[in-house]
Amino acid sequence: MAVAMDEKLILLGHGSGGLLSHELIEKVFLRHLGNALLTPLEDSALFESAERLLAFTTDSYVVKPIFFPGGDIGRLAVCGTVNDLSMRGARPLHLSAGFIIEEGLPIDDLETIVASMHAAADEAGVTIVCGDTKVVEKHAADKLFINTSGVGAVPKNVSVSVSNAQPGDSVIVSGTVGDHGVTILSQRQGLQFKSLTKSDVAPLNGLVQEMLAACPGIHAMRDPTRGGLATTLNEIAKSSKVGIEIEEDRIPVSDAVERACEMLGLDPLYLANEGKLVVLVAKEQTEHLLEVMRNHVYGRAAAVIGQVTSERPGRVVMRNPFGIRRTIEILASDQFPRIC
Amino acid sequence: MAVAMDEKLILLGHGSGGLLSHELIEKVFLRHLGNALLTPLEDSALFESAERLLAFTTDSYVVKPIFFPGGDIGRLAVCGTVNDLSMRGARPLHLSAGFIIEEGLPIDDLETIVASMHAAADEAGVTIVCGDTKVVEKHAADKLFINTSGVGAVPKNVSVSVSNAQPGDSVIVSGTVGDHGVTILSQRQGLQFKSLTKSDVAPLNGLVQEMLAACPGIHAMRDPTRGGLATTLNEIAKSSKVGIEIEEDRIPVSDAVERACEMLGLDPLYLANEGKLVVLVAKEQTEHLLEVMRNHVYGRAAAVIGQVTSERPGRVVMRNPFGIRRTIEILASDQFPRIC
Repeated sequence: MAVAMDEKLILLGHGSGGLLSHELIEKVFLRHLGNALLTPLEDSALFESAERLLAFTTDSYVVKPIFFPGGDIGRLAVCGTVNDLSMRGARPLHLSAGFIIEEGLPIDDLETIVASMHAAADEAGVTIVCGDTKVVEKHAADKLFINTSGVGAVPKNVSVSVSNAQPGDSVIVSGTVGDHGVTILSQRQGLQFKSLTKSDVAPLNGLVQEMLAACPGIHAMRDPTRGGLATTLNEIAKSSKVGIEIEEDRIPVSDAVERACEMLGLDPLYLANEGKLVVLVAKEQTEHLLEVMRNHVYGRAAAVIGQVTSERPGRVVMRNPFGIRRTIEILASDQFPRIC
Repeated sequence: MAVAMDEKLILLGHGSGGLLSHELIEKVFLRHLGNALLTPLEDSALFESAERLLAFTTDSYVVKPIFFPGGDIGRLAVCGTVNDLSMRGARPLHLSAGFIIEEGLPIDDLETIVASMHAAADEAGVTIVCGDTKVVEKHAADKLFINTSGVGAVPKNVSVSVSNAQPGDSVIVSGTVGDHGVTILSQRQGLQFKSLTKSDVAPLNGLVQEMLAACPGIHAMRDPTRGGLATTLNEIAKSSKVGIEIEEDRIPVSDAVERACEMLGLDPLYLANEGKLVVLVAKEQTEHLLEVMRNHVYGRAAAVIGQVTSERPGRVVMRNPFGIRRTIEILASDQFPRIC
């Protein structure tokens, strides 16, 4: 009985580079992710790019818990990197996947997560072409960390950058904010309302492609992950040396997230999102872009939440329903470890 | 005093995405690694490639200890990924760097490692263009894990693959084997002879460029990292569906590594290397390639250790000085966790 149990857990030998590693690669990774570039297990994967301008990004995922309503660390790892490529207007091509596994992780859990990565990659139309697996001792990691890096191709007429926002631009958010962050935090605290919210984790490249097809002149995009909408808007304001003014009552927040935030004393403006983007576009293109976004499954609740100003460069201010303005700072505290 | 101490340690807030994260990025990462592509802190870095054929690879590094004779986890993370690109004949262009840090790591240690990454990247002629930092709680990771992914450009006339070895090819190793593995293992065991060996961790792209300039028709290359020379040769034999026969007394092993292996009961054939490569090339090009390799600082002790056969496809045999052959298997055990 003990042996049968052991066989289903990750052992240190699965990271040795030897026989057990090869077995794990065959039976879990290649079984779900196998493709013409990954399967030969070369030291690096070779691919052709028709575009000369390429995008490259990386993110490690350490979210706790590794399974949560709306997704898991695998879906998160694929979508997060697909989204980081998309925010420069790149078409995501290929991802890498690096696994750091704590000895003792059930192989079934790993397999569920790898299958989830495959499903997310399929949805996004990308392939995972190279990978790596390390196993560390008990208590030298917490279950599973995943790094995904990604390469994308940038079309010639696109130039999207957090430093490109222009005074007069509209600020649009693609949907409700705070869903991912509040879901993870409430899961960890074992709270009753945890089933009422779920993570928004999703690949945004399909939405972005339609946005760029409609408005190739989009100035800036960023996905408000760690630090939330407030931090992202501050980063754009600083990089572009512009002011940003938003209207509190225009920011989409779901009822469930609002209730959860009230109970937990959280501000949805600072909570992570994993399937939302902020886009800044010239005023005259706003209505057209909004229409395109609302026609996409991941942009249904898109809303204009404010505009870019030449006043107060580097600062974000929010006006409440009574017309009172206050400065919205970058996230200062450390209250949200391991949200993604 | 307590506050002053705290200021020098990594806190959970350094991974929050907020103010502390931005400070750490400015003061440690951009200070050492800053460049035109990384410094704007975009969601992904954009770069142009003159070559259409690209190489992409990833590796996570979890070596324990993070500092060791001959290098550290930072140098290892840069060299390992540079080498994985080089093994396909690619010219490494850009790397990503993803840090997973245990709360409480001294910031000075992190800075030393980041500076070491910069030095190794400079030596290899690559730039780190994108990065990510996560911080996890005490005991949720062991000090520091680093993922590096890399993108390289493959010249048109080059076609190097572990599946390309041909019967009759010479098998060349670029220098002594076992240095990295024995150094890490002896460090961990606190053994007396630990100062006698040091890791061979080095970027091999310069050596590979000279090898390919001299012999563009090189068939196969691989760096014998985890699992060592024995495992790498088995992987090549299996991928290329050929046999490999090596001569025991031709395999370069330093005196210090040989002594350490005797004391620890280790076989240098199964120990990791981080600055060595195995190359398979047509017999008639062997002498020329060997000469080129020996003229390079990382190929001084290059040696022909055997040849490829059409007999016994998928198997590696070693002949000892008495002419007796035995099969060399892939690494079977799990005795070497966290060697890289």
